[in-house]
Amino acid sequence: MDTAEATPDFDPKRWIAGTDATETRLLHTMLCVRDPQASLRFYVDVFGMKVVDVVEIETTRLTAYFLGSNENQTDGFLELAHFWDAAEPYSHGTGFGHVSIGAPDFAATLTALEALGTEFLVRPMIMFPGGPQLALVKDPDGYTVEFIQARRD
Amino acid sequence: MDTAEATPDFDPKRWIAGTDATETRLLHTMLCVRDPQASLRFYVDVFGMKVVDVVEIETTRLTAYFLGSNENQTDGFLELAHFWDAAEPYSHGTGFGHVSIGAPDFAATLTALEALGTEFLVRPMIMFPGGPQLALVKDPDGYTVEFIQARRD
Repeated sequence: MDTAEATPDFDPKRWIAGTDATETRLLHTMLCVRDPQASLRFYVDVFGMKVVDVVEIETTRLTAYFLGSNENQTDGFLELAHFWDAAEPYSHGTGFGHVSIGAPDFAATLTALEALGTEFLVRPMIMFPGGPQLALVKDPDGYTVEFIQARRD
Repeated sequence: MDTAEATPDFDPKRWIAGTDATETRLLHTMLCVRDPQASLRFYVDVFGMKVVDVVEIETTRLTAYFLGSNENQTDGFLELAHFWDAAEPYSHGTGFGHVSIGAPDFAATLTALEALGTEFLVRPMIMFPGGPQLALVKDPDGYTVEFIQARRD
């Protein structure tokens, strides 16, 4: 096992669930994005996710943004990968469904989504009696995002 | 706000991060699968994920399997959605990258993947000096899964 030190500024602990995991976990979901600034406006400014790590890899000409909820998180990230030389819009097959994001202030996030001109696939509704509100929207690359109310006062 | 009780046997707490979240989080990633038994062999039997919730929805003719690491988990799920009437294989565009799964016993999981006849896109390698082992494989529906060593003894 190679025990050389990791590259400076590249702390893998944040996104590989440390090195002492005992359970199998979903570490992250990676989606390719064309315009990281547009993506960060959508996922960070509007939804309130936090950028907990940015990894720039010269050899593959890629910047990866790891979005989560806080600095202590070790799994459950959304990785947005920006390949510097990608020119064409990404295509979407029939298999990928969505990423689901829970935001505590449903009404404020909804207002921000509308202000951004976001396309709604499903307008806000209550999913089932007693359930949270949810909506389906498209992110800047056309991925479906399920937006769920994660706090009810 | 509708405050009627939730449907019995349908506890949304597990996958909507409760109702008192203060942070925005990635709740789950949903992928459509054609043969849930093949998917469960891959993600549960081989990788060691746990089925923490199964939701059957008659109206949309859908069974959703929420896979995670333990019963207390409230976010970071992999949702495998089986639409009962889907006949065609799902297609994959260029945008979706992968789901990344960390498994504690890299060698044993690797052996199980090989026994299953799994297609490897990238054979096991060390990602960077001091980093974990990783491999890229295809799941039964053709989705790319990044398999990361999440424990080093």
